Formats: sequence, structure tokens, C-alpha cells
Amino acid sequence: MVVKSQIKFIKSLQQKKCRIQNGMFVAEGIKIVQELLNSNIKAHRIYCTDLEILDDITDNVQQVSESDLKKMSSLKTPSAILGVFYIPKQGEIDCTDWVVALDDIRDPGNLGTIIRLCDWFGIHSLVCSPYTVDCYNPKVLQATMGSIARINIVYTDISDFIKRSKMPVYGAFMDGLNIYSENLQKKGILIMGNEAKGISQELEVVTDKKVSIPQFGANSTESLNVASATAIILNEIRRR
Amino acid sequence: MVVKSQIKFIKSLQQKKCRIQNGMFVAEGIKIVQELLNSNIKAHRIYCTDLEILDDITDNVQQVSESDLKKMSSLKTPSAILGVFYIPKQGEIDCTDWVVALDDIRDPGNLGTIIRLCDWFGIHSLVCSPYTVDCYNPKVLQATMGSIARINIVYTDISDFIKRSKMPVYGAFMDGLNIYSENLQKKGILIMGNEAKGISQELEVVTDKKVSIPQFGANSTESLNVASATAIILNEIRRR
Repeated sequence: MVVKSQIKFIKSLQQKKCRIQNGMFVAEGIKIVQELLNSNIKAHRIYCTDLEILDDITDNVQQVSESDLKKMSSLKTPSAILGVFYIPKQGEIDCTDWVVALDDIRDPGNLGTIIRLCDWFGIHSLVCSPYTVDCYNPKVLQATMGSIARINIVYTDISDFIKRSKMPVYGAFMDGLNIYSENLQKKGILIMGNEAKGISQELEVVTDKKVSIPQFGANSTESLNVASATAIILNEIRRR
Repeated sequence: MVVKSQIKFIKSLQQKKCRIQNGMFVAEGIKIVQELLNSNIKAHRIYCTDLEILDDITDNVQQVSESDLKKMSSLKTPSAILGVFYIPKQGEIDCTDWVVALDDIRDPGNLGTIIRLCDWFGIHSLVCSPYTVDCYNPKVLQATMGSIARINIVYTDISDFIKRSKMPVYGAFMDGLNIYSENLQKKGILIMGNEAKGISQELEVVTDKKVSIPQFGANSTESLNVASATAIILNEIRRR
């Protein structure tokens, strides 16, 4: 049995304000819930329609009916499991390797895809400007496919971080140097800009090297989507 | 003045069945409408709240009120323009260069992003299996950012096409050869598989070379998103 107030509380966590107030977020689906349970992120409570889908059953796992799970869910077609987790403390940014910095990424799908890319390419720290979409937004979590459990995501002022880090700063621009022929350092900060406006002027002035992905199509082509561009640049960094 | 039946007709084009019946589709937003108007795709009718946003005003442009445009729109926040266009005839597949073939891509955002990637990397023909999401779906169009006007998209049986084309066939697999060190032909077919199931067995058996993108993160990492993987592989093909 799930009481109404629990359902109301879980639904409230779909809003960023309530997530911050309570220090908790909601993840849905067995893949992501299981990856979070296997990580350092602490679970508050897990609700599922079938206990057998979990590797381990702990005290805070509760079996619920499909209709109750549906009431808690943000999805049109809820999966069999939903977990409420504590938002982890932001860790130290790992400055021994490349760091990705996002300057006001607004689309949840883009942020989720970039988190998944960082995981694939072994980037441990992702720095997000304060106006970047919240990484505990349900649509971001969905797009990460569980990768969020393995990436240290830090919301902070990017230019402050750049000053403190003393690492070389690369930024993705439309008019930068050809990334294929540029020497890339062993470590650095890669700034990716907002979907519509690109990298802000404030960060452009602290960028050491502007890089671009060569274009092979017609000149009228729109820029690449920011998640596609991140995929290509991280691939260029790691393949060398 | 827009009559009710016009609004009803435009709304109906949000469904694939009605698009096929009428041979028309709807695009929204000045960027994509203007790119379609500049292309070979024929316009049926353009509705906009402000005529000045268009480069040229032709007979089939009609000024409408914001509230009428809102009634036609599939968007929560409609833009100032909406166009009804004729679905173009599928062109000949250009077998003088690389061709991307999509095996049951279901997510509209992924298809839209891949169309945009083809445009960026100068891939002229995109072959889609019959179960791939319709490229005139409003969410696909939105994600293409106008690139759809420049790519020849052909829905057909991929294995039939492979047999006819006699081009070398590459497929993206989790357990393929390292794409960084593989020789790539000057032209070929690149198959990208379904989001959940990957490339079907039917197409796996006609693949000449399986390729993979090396992974640098923990082993537990989920595969890459199919649009990210397409971005990286097209970049590998073109950079050489």
C-alpha cells in the first residue's frame, strides 16, 4: 500500500525546486535504477511491481501495484520500477584528465546524451554552468541510460573553474581551427556552447584554442547538434 | 481567415496515415520552411503571422492570426510560420559515395539528428528500412533543422538495396573491428541498427565488415546512442 502523500511527494520531485528542497531525485526503469543501486549514490526508497527484477532486496524496497506505480511515474508507459535517490554531493573535479564544460545546455536530451558520451570516453568530470538544465530532470536521466551513476557532475561558474584549474581551454566554434590537424594536449577543458547561441563571450575570451569540425556538405548546412559535436570531438581527443 | 476544414486538414497531417493519403507534410518554423522553399520540394500552402519574415511572397502564402496558427500547430509554442509541402518522390540512391542505411530507427530525435549529420558530412542518400520512423513526422523535422531539404531519403528493403548496389557493406556492432585502425573504402554502405536491438540478423549476414567505436570508460557502460555513433563513424569516414 502506498499512501497518497508518498505519491504526491514523488510527483513533486519532477520539479527542480522540489528536488533541491528535498535533496532527492527520481529514476525510472530497471537499467538506471540498478546502475544507481550499484553506485555510490544512496537510495531513499525503491518501488517495484515485481521484486524479482532486482539483484538484491534491501529494507527500502517496497512492492507496489501497477496502478500505484503509474500514479508516481512521469512516463506515459511506466516501467516496473521507480527509485527515489539522494542527490550526491558534487565531487572534486578531476584535473588529471580532460574535463567537459557545458555553457548553458538547455535541452534535456542533449545533456543526457553528453553524460552518456562522457561515460563511454572515460571522462570523469562534467562541469555545467548554473543555467544548464538540471541533470536530475527525468528526461535527462532517461537519456543517460544509467551513465549518470558514473560521472561526477558539478554545477559551477565555468570561468571561475577555468581560472582555478590552470588547464588549457578548448572551445567548439563554427570558425575554429580544423580539429583533425590540431595538436591536442594530454589534458584540457573542452567547452561546448548553448544550442542556439554557442559559447558565451565571457567564456570565449578565456578560450586558448577554438576548434571546429570540418564540414563536407553544402554551405547552407545548419551547424551540428551539440551532442553530435561533443561525440566527434571526444572521439578526436581519445583516438590519438 | 482560415476555415475550420483547413485547420482540421493540417492537424490531420500530424499522422503518418494522413500524410501518405494526401502526399503532404507540415513543417513549422522559419528556418525549416525557408530551407524547404529554397529546395526542390514543392510548397502547397504557407501560413504565417507576419509576411515580412519570408524572402519571397508567392501566391500560396497566406497571412493568418496568431490564434489560427496556434490551432494548426503541433507545437506548444508555435512559431510565426507553418508550411504544407508535397512529399517529394524518392530519388535514385547515389551509389558513387557512401550511403547510410538505417535498420529500424524508432526515435524521431535520432532520425532527425542523423539526417542533419548526413547533411554536414555531405552524404546525399539515406536509406531507411520500412519500419524506421517516418521522416515527415513533426519531431523528426524539428530535429533536422532544415537539413531534410537536402538529403534524398529512400524507404526500402535494405537487403534488396545491398544486393542491387554491389557496394561494400559496413555495419556498426558492439563487437566489431576497431574503426580507428580499419581501412575504409572510398564508398560503401554504413548500416546503423535499432536503438534496442542493434542490426537485425538478416542484415548482419550481408555485412562485409563489422566495425566498432573503442570504449574508454568502465566496462559497465551502456552502448553509445545511435545518433552519437553515427556522428563518430561518419567523422571517421570523412577525416581520412
